[in-house]
Parts: sequence; structure tokens; C-alpha cells
Amino acid sequence: MAVYTPVGAEAVAALLLRYDVGELISLKGIAEGVENTNFFVETNQSKFILTLYEKRVDPGDLPFFYAMLGHLHNAGCMVPRFITDRQGEYLQQVCGRPACLIEFLLGVSVSSPTTAQAAATGAALGDMHRALQDFLPIRVNSLGLAALRPLMQRCGAQDLDAITPGLARRIAAECAFIEGHWPGHLPKSAIHADLFPDNVLMRGDVVSGLIDFYFACTDIRAYDLAVTHAAWSFSSDGSQYYPALGDAIVAGYSNQFGLTADVRRAMPTLARAACLRFLLTRCYDWINTPPSAIVTRKDPIAFLNRLDYYTANPDIFGQSE
Amino acid sequence: MAVYTPVGAEAVAALLLRYDVGELISLKGIAEGVENTNFFVETNQSKFILTLYEKRVDPGDLPFFYAMLGHLHNAGCMVPRFITDRQGEYLQQVCGRPACLIEFLLGVSVSSPTTAQAAATGAALGDMHRALQDFLPIRVNSLGLAALRPLMQRCGAQDLDAITPGLARRIAAECAFIEGHWPGHLPKSAIHADLFPDNVLMRGDVVSGLIDFYFACTDIRAYDLAVTHAAWSFSSDGSQYYPALGDAIVAGYSNQFGLTADVRRAMPTLARAACLRFLLTRCYDWINTPPSAIVTRKDPIAFLNRLDYYTANPDIFGQSE
Repeated sequence: MAVYTPVGAEAVAALLLRYDVGELISLKGIAEGVENTNFFVETNQSKFILTLYEKRVDPGDLPFFYAMLGHLHNAGCMVPRFITDRQGEYLQQVCGRPACLIEFLLGVSVSSPTTAQAAATGAALGDMHRALQDFLPIRVNSLGLAALRPLMQRCGAQDLDAITPGLARRIAAECAFIEGHWPGHLPKSAIHADLFPDNVLMRGDVVSGLIDFYFACTDIRAYDLAVTHAAWSFSSDGSQYYPALGDAIVAGYSNQFGLTADVRRAMPTLARAACLRFLLTRCYDWINTPPSAIVTRKDPIAFLNRLDYYTANPDIFGQSE
Repeated sequence: MAVYTPVGAEAVAALLLRYDVGELISLKGIAEGVENTNFFVETNQSKFILTLYEKRVDPGDLPFFYAMLGHLHNAGCMVPRFITDRQGEYLQQVCGRPACLIEFLLGVSVSSPTTAQAAATGAALGDMHRALQDFLPIRVNSLGLAALRPLMQRCGAQDLDAITPGLARRIAAECAFIEGHWPGHLPKSAIHADLFPDNVLMRGDVVSGLIDFYFACTDIRAYDLAVTHAAWSFSSDGSQYYPALGDAIVAGYSNQFGLTADVRRAMPTLARAACLRFLLTRCYDWINTPPSAIVTRKDPIAFLNRLDYYTANPDIFGQSE
């Protein structure tokens, strides 16, 4: 969300010489994405994002992302491609950091989605899942089912209860529930796994880009829909569920990709799992980030509220096709 | 240097409806400038910077800046204009902050200037001074001669000496020197007063924009040249003076605007005053900014080193025309 590594225009101009992308004419550090350093780069030919990977992204995972975005692009999905240099290389070193040049897509992220925008996002997700049916590379979800309990333990019961009393017990019970009800029989696929409104570029009601694939992985396909539903259908503090948005996400997706009765039945559990994942990572960041740090801490309670809602309202996804 | 106030795409799209600038198609928070929040805004017609003024800029000073940049633009200087809405207004309110839409200029800020780039910058400064000879509005330099001693006192001797032993005494002596030798007889003008490499956009060796006029004010014209010289002619830690760069700044300026013997004689004092101004504001920020804060603290010693150099080498500007 900030520029962690300053990079001079000379260094970027020199880097661009490795590519067939024209000459540098503008360079701005931008506040975007996970904990990477991002620059908006304009050349006399096109626009790009230059990303320096600071810590959260393991460079060993980058080939999965190159492949996934290339595959999606070839299938007609609106995603930013990684750009290769003249030697065909994606990965560069800039100021000692692994770095990639990435296509820049127009569009803006909405803060308060309309029903039409939610429907378009559900449809774009379904479209992406369709395109990924023949995508074979595998990346384990490092924040999937198996990661939840260890993450809870790394947070520690005392620190969790300091966030809000009773949280440790609540999370432990929820972990047990998810582990006991995980719909492991459902189809797996490459998924985005983080399709918050921040990561969807729109022009009006039209999706112009799905971005920030750094949590993309292989997991139950419908878990992606659950994450998207949890991310799009509530007020940002999670205190208010907007049924019209939730229904639009599901309808948009279902129209594009379909939704089996099996998946529909599993959605409440998958939505609870999605909430637990974001609740836990936000708790972990909350506990381990000093309040004065450069990174803004996101409130964990926003996902506890969503978890409460899905737990109390298992019928919102309907029971049949 | 960061996004202090998050602004949603909906709010920016609504703001743009007040202007004749087209429709929002991209919005990115950018890390740039003094302590404002800046967004890169692209519409289907053009590109802009949207600035929200957080604290350092007094909205009461904005009319001076609108006028100065409009005047410079009309005179053919490469500066970003403030954009008026359909009612002719520059000043807006966005998320509770005073805000302005400003022209976006292409070009990059260099980190390690070449001699040709320094000469072009000196010439652009001279060109700007020529254009400002008939610009009448006045803004007092809030960091000018009269501000140095109070700023030193607000820092406090103990805190100054904690930065480096003996600093308080050194600064007090330098204040006395500047006060005793200030060339108050030299011509005054509107000046930029902060023309660091960050604030000069270049395409190759050509200046494509002078930006960030938020310290612009009325003061001795040649003080602007002194600031520019101090900002461009040293290694960033101030330990190394590059005569070729310093000479290029002065020659570029002199070719464009001329340099009287009077001004040349005063340059060593003005350069010391420029160093003292940046030394003091950096000391003040150093003392008053926690190390973990979101704002990067700039090292005061970089300007103590420059001050030492100018004090020891008063002949670098030459003694005659």
C-alpha cells in the first residue's frame, strides 16, 4: 500500500531497455495492492505497472501467476498480463528486489457497488472459472483449510481475546466446524481467492479488469464465489448484509458458469470458511503490526460480523438450483 | 508522500461532473509531493492530479498558486495549471478536505542529474524568472530570513545537539551570519523556492515540467537559484559537491536570465541561507516525527554538509560576470 523501495527514473529507464515497450515518459509511485512497491510506468507506447516484490509474495510462486494470467488473457478474460523482456524473461531484479512489468488496465475500483456492478463481477468470476477449466498448473492455497488452525495458534488465544473478549473460543469452534463440514468433494480449480472490490476494475457497470492475483491458488472452485460474496455483499464493517448485492453476485456467477445443487448446499460453509480466513489473517496482522506502522491495519471485526451473519442465515444461498 | 485520505472512485466521478474534463477511467493513489494526498486521475479526455490538502498547505495561499501557475502557463513555461470547474472555481471539497484538480504533465524526475539536465534546469528556472517579472501578487516566504531564528528556537538547542553534537551552536552562528549579510537590496520576485530534482520533470535532457509550487513565495529572486544550486549540485547526503553540475545550473540560468555582479557576489550567502532553511526544517521534522511514522524523515546532515561546503568555498560562483 506504499512505496517501500524508492526506484529512480534512471533505473526504470534502464530496465525498459530490456523490453520492446518504448521509452519512459512518466513514473509515479502508487499506493496499491498487497505489500509490494508499485509504480505506474508510462512509455511512448503503452502503460504498465512495475511491481517490486517486498515480502508477502514468494518469487517461486510467480511462474504460476504468469501462466494463469497468460491463460486467462488468451481466453479473452480482462486480466493484466505479465510482460516478457526480449529474452522471454518475466522476472527482473530492480534495486535488489524481484520485479515484474505488468500490463496496466483502465478502470476504477468501486467503494459502494451497485447491484449491476455486483452482477457484472459475479459474471466475470464465472467467466474466469470457465476459462480456467483447462488450466493445469497447481498452487497450494497457503491460506486454505489446512492453514486455518495453525494461523489461529500463531495468533494465540490471549492476543485474540484482546481484540474482542471470547474471540479465541469462537475461532476455535469455527475452525472445528469448518474442518468437520469442509465440502472436499466439490470440484477444484485455479481460483483468484481475493476478489474484493479493490481488485475489480470497472468502467461504469462493466468489468474492465480483474487484478491482484497474488493469492491465486488451487482450491475448491466455489470457495472463490464464497470469498467474492463475503467481500461484496456487506457494508465494509460487516454490520450490514445487502441481500440485493449478494443475490446479484450469485446470479451473475450462476448465469455465466452455472451453480449445482451440491455447490449451493456447500455455500454457507464455504462463506464461513472465507470469513474465518480473512478474520484470522486480519487478527494476525492486527496483533503483529504496530498501530503507527506504515501499513494500515484492517479491522478483524468486519469479518467476525460477516461470519456471524452467515452462521445465523444459512439459507441466503437457497437450497436448490 | 502517501495517501492520507482514501477517496472512492464514486466520489471522484461525482467531482468530475462539475468540470468539462470527461469521464473517469482510472484512479490511483500516488506517492508524491509534500504532505498532501494525491491521486492520478485519467479521464477519456486527459490526465490530471487530484490533490487533497492535508495540513502543510494553507488553502488561503492557493489563489497565489493558481495565479502564478496560470501566469507561467500563459508565458509558455511548462507548469501544471490548476483546472477550473464550470463555475470557474478552482477550490473543491473532497472527503472534507480542500482539493484541486491539476493538469498532469509527462516526464520523470531524475535521481542522478547529468550536466545537460542541470543546465536545462538552470535555464528553465531563468525562463520562469523572466516570465515572472510582470507577476504582481505577493506571498510572504514563511520560511524566509525572518523565519530562520524562530525555527531554530522551536527546535531547541538540546534536541539539535542530539542530532549531532555542536549543531545548536553552529546553527545559531549561521543564523547570525545570514542576518548580518542578507543581500536585502537584490531584486525580489515570485520564486519557486523548492526546485529539487523531485520537482523537475524531464524527458531526456529536456525539462517537460516544473511542479510542486507549494513553497512558492515572494523573496529575493536569486535565492531561488541558490536553492536550486544546493539541491542539484551535491550527492544526496551532501558529502560530495559536483562542480560540473553546479556550474551547469548557474550557466543555464545565466544564459536565460543573466546574472549581475551583485547577484554573483551574494550567491555564497544565499546558498548558505538555502542550506540553513532546509537544515532547520529537516531538523524540526526529525525532532517532531516518530521514526516509525508514515512520513519518511529526511536526514538534516545532508544540508549541514552542504552548508559546510558553501562556507568553506565562497568562490565557486565566481566574483564577476
